[in-house]
Amino acid sequence: MSHYRTFTADDAVAWAKQHGGLANPEKLTHAEEVGDGNLNLVFKVFDNEGISRIIVKQALPYVRCVGESWPLTLDRARLEAETLIAHYQHCPQHTVNILHFDQPLAVMVMEDLSSYRIWRGELIRGEYYPQAASQLGEYLAQVLFHTSDFYLHPHQKKAEVARFINPEMCEITEDLFFNDPYCQHERNNYPAALESDVAALREDNDLKLAVSALKHRFFSHAEALLHGDIHSGSIFVAEGRLKAIDAEFGFFGPAGFDPGTAIGNLLLNYCGLPGLLPLREAADAREQRLADISELWHTFTERFQTLAREKTRDQALGCPGYTSQFLKKVWHDAIGYAGTELIRRTVGLSHVADIDTITDDAMRLACQRQALALGKALILIADKIDNVEEFIARVRQYS
Amino acid sequence: MSHYRTFTADDAVAWAKQHGGLANPEKLTHAEEVGDGNLNLVFKVFDNEGISRIIVKQALPYVRCVGESWPLTLDRARLEAETLIAHYQHCPQHTVNILHFDQPLAVMVMEDLSSYRIWRGELIRGEYYPQAASQLGEYLAQVLFHTSDFYLHPHQKKAEVARFINPEMCEITEDLFFNDPYCQHERNNYPAALESDVAALREDNDLKLAVSALKHRFFSHAEALLHGDIHSGSIFVAEGRLKAIDAEFGFFGPAGFDPGTAIGNLLLNYCGLPGLLPLREAADAREQRLADISELWHTFTERFQTLAREKTRDQALGCPGYTSQFLKKVWHDAIGYAGTELIRRTVGLSHVADIDTITDDAMRLACQRQALALGKALILIADKIDNVEEFIARVRQYS
Repeated sequence: MSHYRTFTADDAVAWAKQHGGLANPEKLTHAEEVGDGNLNLVFKVFDNEGISRIIVKQALPYVRCVGESWPLTLDRARLEAETLIAHYQHCPQHTVNILHFDQPLAVMVMEDLSSYRIWRGELIRGEYYPQAASQLGEYLAQVLFHTSDFYLHPHQKKAEVARFINPEMCEITEDLFFNDPYCQHERNNYPAALESDVAALREDNDLKLAVSALKHRFFSHAEALLHGDIHSGSIFVAEGRLKAIDAEFGFFGPAGFDPGTAIGNLLLNYCGLPGLLPLREAADAREQRLADISELWHTFTERFQTLAREKTRDQALGCPGYTSQFLKKVWHDAIGYAGTELIRRTVGLSHVADIDTITDDAMRLACQRQALALGKALILIADKIDNVEEFIARVRQYS
Repeated sequence: MSHYRTFTADDAVAWAKQHGGLANPEKLTHAEEVGDGNLNLVFKVFDNEGISRIIVKQALPYVRCVGESWPLTLDRARLEAETLIAHYQHCPQHTVNILHFDQPLAVMVMEDLSSYRIWRGELIRGEYYPQAASQLGEYLAQVLFHTSDFYLHPHQKKAEVARFINPEMCEITEDLFFNDPYCQHERNNYPAALESDVAALREDNDLKLAVSALKHRFFSHAEALLHGDIHSGSIFVAEGRLKAIDAEFGFFGPAGFDPGTAIGNLLLNYCGLPGLLPLREAADAREQRLADISELWHTFTERFQTLAREKTRDQALGCPGYTSQFLKKVWHDAIGYAGTELIRRTVGLSHVADIDTITDDAMRLACQRQALALGKALILIADKIDNVEEFIARVRQYS
């Protein structure tokens, strides 16, 4: 009795009562649709004291911001639920808890995170969460290690790769990250004043070659079960806490893609800060972003190393020194993917508020130019940057 | 009505009559089991004039040479049939033609290749097939290109990756290529006189690190639908003709694995020749093997480049210069995998007749030592060898 239908607020309340696992479900009284994303309905379900207790999320069979003309598979709800459930298993402290999933309805019931805030909004307002970067590094280390060939039995790994095949969502990334910004495409979205900068991307064959290699690795390197879209808008933070949400892009891909996306979004904030905050605050916040990137990467690699030392099951991958060698590959990939994130968020369909909300046109344009220059440089020199200190020096060089 | 049962010769005849697609099936009269492999029954089905007309191959549910104590999935027959059918689609001239496949019985009916001979036997006898190497290069270019991200639509590629998940057969490779020779294992099989050479493998951390990376790429780089076991015993040759058979190890893996296996087996023959042929003939045949490797690689890359130029469908991978860049990765991988083939065929469970049939003990040992030294060198310097001419110079250096 659960063929697909679009949920109303009342459906969400009924569903939360039944599947939310609350001690007093009868106290749930009403729901509010709060989805501001592009792809889903999101209901907050409140109790009789007006406190939000449960989230009910339903995938729509089309891209919400475009309309029914761009259909999109409901199977992404299964992929999101199963990715989050797998990640929760390995890192419950930093993954949203999925309480129930109904496949035909494409509906998830999940823990309410009203005491958290979206990290991107906080970064834009200049609110600093000193533990967020290391907690994100911890999350990435736990979920990427435990879904990699280091840890999974080869039979299980292969079965998981098949289970998380995600053609439609991957195609969005394949197009928006690796094609659109480097050609003329109607989906692209940038101001006319940026035209010569964007034309330069299309004419830079070395850049396009490096992007081709990144796309090919995205296609073919099934290293770990990625979140697949871990930007600062997919991350909830509170004092001393952090939770990842929105994993409908989950699939087995190159391990560097997730840290690269995360670093790319910290850099987008870095680029936007002069237009978001007063001069001195902006300068301080910029230093925080660079420190965040350093903290994120150091925590990620240290935790991954520790996990590899303690829990690697594959005999060959357990060879002394192999984890470091692999993490170098992950690092170079991450720099490249960070670069593609900077470019596609500036030129392509989907932008970030860190830059788009800058009200001064000249300032916004300057920030966009910086994002493009930095993105381009990172893609081109990714393999030459050996550690995070050099990386930060390079970021300063292009600022 | 086709639950699994082990075929008799009479079953094979009946099956060939029904599924062999012959104009006069009633003329088929008897069959002979000729399987000399480790895993399957192979029947030649003859007509009333004593001419072999059809092959009927059945997978056994265990490893034949070990017995029922080592069970092995019958699904490998499906994987073999589907790999060969896919490869035949892209390269009918160099792939055995599968006429019928029955999944519950794990039985394939295929074209008779009695006018061909197994390439390994010919190489051992010093029989030269001047077109074999370039035809093998053509086969590898066609099948690897047409099953890669260059050519397949991303949705189809992902579905194919899932269809060709091959956990049990891959596990054999994962163990025999990348684990056993580098540790003490009861499956290993080498003469006591080789003990110190083999111990040196186990103690060489740089070597083991490089092998770990090759194993990790075998696990995770789903670049193309590999044959998975394309040694000279899986290849039939006749004058001006060549056909690949025995693809039960088929799966999506690193494109360099297939050319690496092929090159490794040409090098095993190279190492064995001084023990197989008289002095001068052996020297000539060695030069032929090196020329074969050059021919194989040049044909492979030239055909792959042409196919990429004419038929690449992915926009990013079609970027000028990207095919060359990718083929460099394939080349370095191929050298490394060739090295692992040399070592595992000398130290591990499964040997090659090119060396094992050498009757003089001292000579056989010398050939084995050369295979080990060459294998080790290739694995360690794979990334430093830029082209096939340098490769051949290195082979001479370790001879």
